[in-house]
Amino acid sequence: MTIEEKFATLGVDNAPGQEETRKDAPLDLRGPKLEGTPVDFSHGDVNAHKPTPGSLGLFVEGVMEGAVQAYTPYRGRMTILADMAKKISAFTGAKIDCPSELILTPGTQGALFLAMGACIMPGDKVAIVEPDYFANRKMVEFFHGQMVPVAMDWEKDPRKAGIDLAALEKAFQDGVKLFLFSNPNNPVGCIYSYDEICAIAALAKKYGATLIVDELYSRQVYEGETYTHLCAQKEIPENLISIIGPSKTESLSGYRLGVAFGTAAIIERMEKLQAIMALRCSGYNQAVFGCWFSEPEGWMKARVAEHQRIRDDLMAVVHGVEGVSARPTQGGSYLFVTIPELCVSLHEFIRIARAHAGVTVTPGTEFGPQFTHQFRINFSQDHDAAVAALKRLFTLMDLYRK
Amino acid sequence: MTIEEKFATLGVDNAPGQEETRKDAPLDLRGPKLEGTPVDFSHGDVNAHKPTPGSLGLFVEGVMEGAVQAYTPYRGRMTILADMAKKISAFTGAKIDCPSELILTPGTQGALFLAMGACIMPGDKVAIVEPDYFANRKMVEFFHGQMVPVAMDWEKDPRKAGIDLAALEKAFQDGVKLFLFSNPNNPVGCIYSYDEICAIAALAKKYGATLIVDELYSRQVYEGETYTHLCAQKEIPENLISIIGPSKTESLSGYRLGVAFGTAAIIERMEKLQAIMALRCSGYNQAVFGCWFSEPEGWMKARVAEHQRIRDDLMAVVHGVEGVSARPTQGGSYLFVTIPELCVSLHEFIRIARAHAGVTVTPGTEFGPQFTHQFRINFSQDHDAAVAALKRLFTLMDLYRK
Repeated sequence: MTIEEKFATLGVDNAPGQEETRKDAPLDLRGPKLEGTPVDFSHGDVNAHKPTPGSLGLFVEGVMEGAVQAYTPYRGRMTILADMAKKISAFTGAKIDCPSELILTPGTQGALFLAMGACIMPGDKVAIVEPDYFANRKMVEFFHGQMVPVAMDWEKDPRKAGIDLAALEKAFQDGVKLFLFSNPNNPVGCIYSYDEICAIAALAKKYGATLIVDELYSRQVYEGETYTHLCAQKEIPENLISIIGPSKTESLSGYRLGVAFGTAAIIERMEKLQAIMALRCSGYNQAVFGCWFSEPEGWMKARVAEHQRIRDDLMAVVHGVEGVSARPTQGGSYLFVTIPELCVSLHEFIRIARAHAGVTVTPGTEFGPQFTHQFRINFSQDHDAAVAALKRLFTLMDLYRK
Repeated sequence: MTIEEKFATLGVDNAPGQEETRKDAPLDLRGPKLEGTPVDFSHGDVNAHKPTPGSLGLFVEGVMEGAVQAYTPYRGRMTILADMAKKISAFTGAKIDCPSELILTPGTQGALFLAMGACIMPGDKVAIVEPDYFANRKMVEFFHGQMVPVAMDWEKDPRKAGIDLAALEKAFQDGVKLFLFSNPNNPVGCIYSYDEICAIAALAKKYGATLIVDELYSRQVYEGETYTHLCAQKEIPENLISIIGPSKTESLSGYRLGVAFGTAAIIERMEKLQAIMALRCSGYNQAVFGCWFSEPEGWMKARVAEHQRIRDDLMAVVHGVEGVSARPTQGGSYLFVTIPELCVSLHEFIRIARAHAGVTVTPGTEFGPQFTHQFRINFSQDHDAAVAALKRLFTLMDLYRK
């Protein structure tokens, strides 16, 4: 394989925020252009849902502190690591030794990349869920791993995520030594049941596999839902990394902040990799961690409630359209919408929706090649604009039904 | 090779800023403790040499701009890319097409990692200079390349860096397809002559090799010195990436800002890798690029002159100590100091100097295993404190002479 062939599979053209750089073929536009506030559902809108109060102030204080905040150890400034260990431990229920068991990273993407880079050798078999976060597959390919997909049937039973546990066990039996998954799941927004989490942990332990659990959205869990932190359970595998960050619910993505915690030997390898990858989570930016898990009284609750209301109104739109369905989000800001057969391809329809209705969504194929009738939306948007945009998208879609 | 064996070679214990996390054996301390302002020569002191005026203000404006600055395309915000292309082109003399030929990265470390990751396949032979920046070797190892060292005799001729061009040609003949080097050299601070740069470019072109040129310190060139930008020469190889950033001379390291520019196909692969590595150079931080190459009138000139004066005073200290030598820095803030045989190892002496004289330096072995009689200092420090600290170090050293 050449370097060109290797990178040919790592497309970014359909990834969130990349539309600006794309050169497209002419489109089969039907009907009049649908006017309305453009909505980019490919990522959250930090103008509609502002960053945590006080975040910029902490950054400025960090700059004022000078050298001690500019140049931290690669894994992060000790005082901030200690604060994070305490807060994340209180949140998840897991014990976290500081500094041996955690590291600050450039966003949770950085944490994922470091964890994968610290665990995969060329040729290693790595299991990932389908559908799951699109970078998971790409990281396996970049590090020359062999991807082993494990299906998740999210439409079957609302009380669980629907991961195929028999397939996961078969994967471990076939030599998979690493399993990565997101909970709440990206793109579906479903939450793994207590039984599913315990089963995954037990299987990993039984087969000596490493687990990487992406808990990015675990603070944004809706009314009536129960979230289980794998890291806090009694039976966990020897090698376990959990990942979390304030980029989503807290709208701090512009600062690129993430945390990975778990097995000390893996965290140590991640620090070595971070040293040659980007040195550290940006020094001054680390100061912003101070507002995380320390939000003003009631702020997080209100933010989650706001998103639950948007979800409910979008689900009402989905329910009103024939042949369209989505599982109501249990955690996080994503909806994974299934649409009927159209007379244009999914990718073409998505380009049409952007050009003709001002609505940007992420194609299902980013989350697994088989999801040709799905798109993902991030509904952390202006409430009314999001509802209107989704309606426009379906109005337009009706012109392309087969 | 296991993942543990792979990472065993990627040590960070002696890397700048990591001393805090190290557990050391007892030391053979001699004489009284030498009192004075502690100086950490392992990296520059942004308290002594402040970040570019206006940098924090630009950051705050970026946050105020909101979503458009928080979520940029992976390669960076288009307006900032255009500004950078123009300014770097004016500085180097190279033509840079925007956006195809440049990318914003989390520091120049991020740029180096992306460039190496976008060019190395497992088993590829990669040439690097000895001595050169310590991460170069580690990146080759991380990406499963085969390192081919090329010697640089910096002590021979003050009119050139002293790279062994015959060895470089031999390396290309033996199948090396990628050559990475820093200019000004880190750790020596020497500048490659015009003839050396032209010869490197011609050899790479002749053998179809890719070049990565780390020009991090190229704005900090001292009086009477001539710097040659390889990227601006007539005869350049088809595949060429140059790297530069404001972390050093401009003291903006706490923001983690870097730029890579050059061959579009490589930049495209770097963007794909950045998408799974850390998504982007932190969104808000990108706004700080606005003050780069736009410093207040005379500010850069004064900053370079300040550093030249520190260099001169440190060289006077070096010249006053028997058996100690260093080549005067031509560009950048490093001095690579050769010391005589001691009755303790280099690493032990360095730990002693830190504990007993409050002076932190980086061991020569970080830049090549053979440099057991050298240490590197970054003299971007408080002028008087730096001079006093270097004197303390040599006073202490005298107690350990063989």
